[in-house]
Amino acid sequence: MSLFRPQVQQMAGYTPGEQPQESGWVKLNTNENAYPPSPRVKEAVQHVLEGRLNIYPDPLATEFRKVAAELFQVDPDWILPGNGSDEILTILMRSFVEPNELVSAPYPSYTLYETLAEIQGARFHRIQLNPDWDWPVADALEVAAKSKILFVPNPNAPSGNRWPDEDLLSLIPTQGVLVLDEAYGDFCDRPHRCELLKAGFGAKIVVTRSLSKSYSLAGIRFGFAVAHPELIRGMRKVKDSYNCNALSLAAAIAALKDQEWMLANTNRIRATRDLLVMELRKLGFEAVDSQTNFVWCTHPDGEHERRYQELKQRKILVRYMKFTLRDGILDGLRITVGTEDEIQQVLDALRVIG
Amino acid sequence: MSLFRPQVQQMAGYTPGEQPQESGWVKLNTNENAYPPSPRVKEAVQHVLEGRLNIYPDPLATEFRKVAAELFQVDPDWILPGNGSDEILTILMRSFVEPNELVSAPYPSYTLYETLAEIQGARFHRIQLNPDWDWPVADALEVAAKSKILFVPNPNAPSGNRWPDEDLLSLIPTQGVLVLDEAYGDFCDRPHRCELLKAGFGAKIVVTRSLSKSYSLAGIRFGFAVAHPELIRGMRKVKDSYNCNALSLAAAIAALKDQEWMLANTNRIRATRDLLVMELRKLGFEAVDSQTNFVWCTHPDGEHERRYQELKQRKILVRYMKFTLRDGILDGLRITVGTEDEIQQVLDALRVIG
Repeated sequence: MSLFRPQVQQMAGYTPGEQPQESGWVKLNTNENAYPPSPRVKEAVQHVLEGRLNIYPDPLATEFRKVAAELFQVDPDWILPGNGSDEILTILMRSFVEPNELVSAPYPSYTLYETLAEIQGARFHRIQLNPDWDWPVADALEVAAKSKILFVPNPNAPSGNRWPDEDLLSLIPTQGVLVLDEAYGDFCDRPHRCELLKAGFGAKIVVTRSLSKSYSLAGIRFGFAVAHPELIRGMRKVKDSYNCNALSLAAAIAALKDQEWMLANTNRIRATRDLLVMELRKLGFEAVDSQTNFVWCTHPDGEHERRYQELKQRKILVRYMKFTLRDGILDGLRITVGTEDEIQQVLDALRVIG
Repeated sequence: MSLFRPQVQQMAGYTPGEQPQESGWVKLNTNENAYPPSPRVKEAVQHVLEGRLNIYPDPLATEFRKVAAELFQVDPDWILPGNGSDEILTILMRSFVEPNELVSAPYPSYTLYETLAEIQGARFHRIQLNPDWDWPVADALEVAAKSKILFVPNPNAPSGNRWPDEDLLSLIPTQGVLVLDEAYGDFCDRPHRCELLKAGFGAKIVVTRSLSKSYSLAGIRFGFAVAHPELIRGMRKVKDSYNCNALSLAAAIAALKDQEWMLANTNRIRATRDLLVMELRKLGFEAVDSQTNFVWCTHPDGEHERRYQELKQRKILVRYMKFTLRDGILDGLRITVGTEDEIQQVLDALRVIG
């Protein structure tokens, strides 16, 4: 007999994207930022290294919360920092969801939601999106009403589209929380600034943000939640006291303070993204108009796995994804928007591969 | 109606020790190491800073697991790294314990076990230790047999004593896991090297280790589990994919590789500890012989809270702790073994305070 909980024993576990540790790859598979973080990050971490690593970090992350609060024009008690926004998602699940309660998310979207629900022993409902990535309104409203948490990537992954705010507001669960996962929020043409929280719907919405993407800091693992203080207070009981380390805290603070750097990079990426979409279409792909730093594309011939493999042979990594829909399989390629040079390489390769 | 799970709504949450962020304190309240980490830690982190923080860290922590495995003479698949050993404790709870199942720990011991059980919706049994900090054998065996996890600090906190290995082996749950929390294992006169795991009892034991104490790295949040690969495999499904960041991983690897530095510090601390115990006894305290980097002491006059307050007025922070036993209250002071100079300051102050 297994010692593990039945859910844990049975589950396959979440599979992260490939992370080759050696250099030489054009790595366009896990939506990292192609540009380095603000030079102030390095300075800030070096300053901590001169200090005392033998001492615990501030468990309240006072300075970080102050800086993040200023950025979103809220009070610091609206902010909860985490060891990556993945940890915030875990804290949300452990805060709000009892075993057998319902958790839902659009499908296809970020598959980690389902893994976390499985670990928590929750039921999970995939709200299958329409082929144009829009909401199936009736189904969505019915499921949302019954959900303890509805997770919505805003904008969505892997499609990259953004839904109108009114759609999102209509989906707030009656007895639960709408989690807007804004990992890619800074790449929108009109970036998010937690407007929905401040518009009076905040008591049932949690926004999660990541420093991995727009701030080029996937390596330091830092994300945070923005939500009404009532929600933050409860979530704080669930998090480990010292969930953020002194080095990452310093890096995160420095990164948020250098908005100019972040905006310069996201602007460059948005320009490259629009180029990628245009060129993919010229090559015969169907590519979704993206509000993120990646592009979802499919080809009428359906040979996505072949293209993934042939790109990989050329040391170009993109993400091949495959989803089981009610009425068949949806697969395609999700290509991270790298530097313009990297995107030219992938386009050149696709021209050769066919 | 609260949106939170009933357990979360009702619980008070774990209270970490005070972490004054300004300098000028003699800080002997959270068992930090008084000495700095190996200089190689700084070099290693600086090397990462020269590299690419925009890229995700290795989700398998391959290099760290190799180094830790060598240290304990096991294979790398016996090692699971975590964002502090607190995260490992959380992962254990989420891996093995269903709601309403039994979790137990000696009492008094680390109070986080109870908080984590509460969050998981588990029942929790305190195995009240005898006044000499020994096990109440009959009660302990009965509870251990029924527990899904029995957490045992090895050596114990806040008392600092170490139980014989035979005692621990007798407590392995019939259908569960014995977790030996060895956060302070390196401070024992005969340090732990996971002997119990390798002696054939490993299939039901998980050892947790921390870099916060003996390696002087509370600031970087790093701990790990050592256990049979069968157990590690399941626990890995529950952890966040990227739970350890690139900076802390590099710091942890460098620290483990510099055993000489760690041993020099733990040896100094052990010498100061024995001095502290001796001097406290001269001042009329009862002090437990410690195998850790802290000393638990009580005074026949019972005025522990007064002494804590008066020390605090002198900017000396120790930990005042209070436990509710079946037959009354146990309180006392837990004093971290700082530098010899810091310990002289606390002793001088106690001489004045009385």
